[in-house]
Amino acid sequence: MSMQQRQRRLVALTEFLTARPGQMVNLGDLSQKFGVAKSTLSEDLAAVKEALEVNRAGVIETQVGALGGVAWRPALDVSRVAESLAEWIEALAERERRTAEGFLYMTDLLFDPRRIAPMGALLADRLRPLAVQAVATVETKGIPLALATADHLGVGVILLRRDSRLSDGSALSINYLSGSSHRIQSMSLSRRAPVEGVRVAFVDDFMKAGGTARAAADLLGEFNARVVGVGVLIATDEPQAKLAGDYVACLSWSPASNTISASPWVDERLEGKGGDERGTSSGT
Amino acid sequence: MSMQQRQRRLVALTEFLTARPGQMVNLGDLSQKFGVAKSTLSEDLAAVKEALEVNRAGVIETQVGALGGVAWRPALDVSRVAESLAEWIEALAERERRTAEGFLYMTDLLFDPRRIAPMGALLADRLRPLAVQAVATVETKGIPLALATADHLGVGVILLRRDSRLSDGSALSINYLSGSSHRIQSMSLSRRAPVEGVRVAFVDDFMKAGGTARAAADLLGEFNARVVGVGVLIATDEPQAKLAGDYVACLSWSPASNTISASPWVDERLEGKGGDERGTSSGT
Repeated sequence: MSMQQRQRRLVALTEFLTARPGQMVNLGDLSQKFGVAKSTLSEDLAAVKEALEVNRAGVIETQVGALGGVAWRPALDVSRVAESLAEWIEALAERERRTAEGFLYMTDLLFDPRRIAPMGALLADRLRPLAVQAVATVETKGIPLALATADHLGVGVILLRRDSRLSDGSALSINYLSGSSHRIQSMSLSRRAPVEGVRVAFVDDFMKAGGTARAAADLLGEFNARVVGVGVLIATDEPQAKLAGDYVACLSWSPASNTISASPWVDERLEGKGGDERGTSSGT
Repeated sequence: MSMQQRQRRLVALTEFLTARPGQMVNLGDLSQKFGVAKSTLSEDLAAVKEALEVNRAGVIETQVGALGGVAWRPALDVSRVAESLAEWIEALAERERRTAEGFLYMTDLLFDPRRIAPMGALLADRLRPLAVQAVATVETKGIPLALATADHLGVGVILLRRDSRLSDGSALSINYLSGSSHRIQSMSLSRRAPVEGVRVAFVDDFMKAGGTARAAADLLGEFNARVVGVGVLIATDEPQAKLAGDYVACLSWSPASNTISASPWVDERLEGKGGDERGTSSGT
């Protein structure tokens, strides 16, 4: 076996594993795919694992046994998240985004995968210790962030509808008083949604009083699912106490002073105090 | 420089590039990040490029000039798409998914990133030659597929709303007759949406008569944006001629015989007739 062949294999193996974050890849399948003996594969995996870990790009986790294999768990890319946060703050400050009624137009930003993916990675990093089995959101503008967060956690999204549709079949609905607009709102969930007994993180784009998050927890509770964490892109600084209780927001908006800034826990995390950081050193 | 150092760098470089599909990475930034001279970086890049291309994982594109650099363009992972399609067909055949009114409950499937990502990759692969600059969808169930497709194309999603909201500011709305239910429906788009002159692919979860896709094209036309392609997850076999004109569907549903199957162009693509395929050989 030439050195060049080994290098090729290391590169191909790296691409294969890192393209499947959180997915357990069987060693037998891998050795077949790359046409090498298991002993050679093990040496290759050790080399890939060491190189990625030295670079703080993430870790390759190994699980032994019949259903065992290896899985790639990427570390939070702090420099990318920091860059993305700066872009969000800059974009949200654009005067054209303020509507006459004092709202902030940001649908185009929320629906851009390149902008929302780093925020999903950030929330997933924070919510991961809660061992959630699903992310829930209520339509519509929180959907991209919920999907990005779920993607990083390796789980699905439970969609709460504003109105139930014919394709939902029978559905359970609740009405609630919105904490900010004091209007009656409703949300519903199909009885077919597979959520029984599941640990859930509720994710949304925006939180003011937290009434929507609380209503989502109530509705999911009817299905015996439990909201164990709440994450949003932007929360207003007032009221400080939200109806939903504990939550994490990437950005904090002060309408009074008209400023948007990263939340304190985000600054701490990006400075490497909140967990393993992904460095910029090549480690060589 | 030891062989081990070079191997480490090749692995780290592979992870860095493939984690940023479609994104132009500057060579100066790369050589700084990995702490090597540009000449060494060029040799490394050539090795990574060759290994990935031999494995048919994708191509590294080079752009020269001041704004130049390299960008990773993953090939369609045909085995993964084929596996995902089989899972979709199996899941959609589950009897519990049929509602009393003859609809198909599939919200949980549509909102699972692991299920929808391969379908987005498949549509993106098909739509890429159209050089679209944005993907558009109308809320709500088509959103995950639209985001996945846009992610693979490296563009954003234009969200058409069913009703305009306060945060949209002023919006343009149209009413149209749904081709399948013959009911009046409406959709709207904020005047702040940055879509002027853009080439758009319309993406949705389901198409029957195609009235929604046609209405989307009309509404986007009012903004001087042009729908140049339409892609959906599932289309019914009847009516064959859709109001939207040309479209591509991943799956075809025959309500009469109650069968769901992959569309002919999909089978062709997965057999490698429709473009560069990603093989399973390691190439060593």
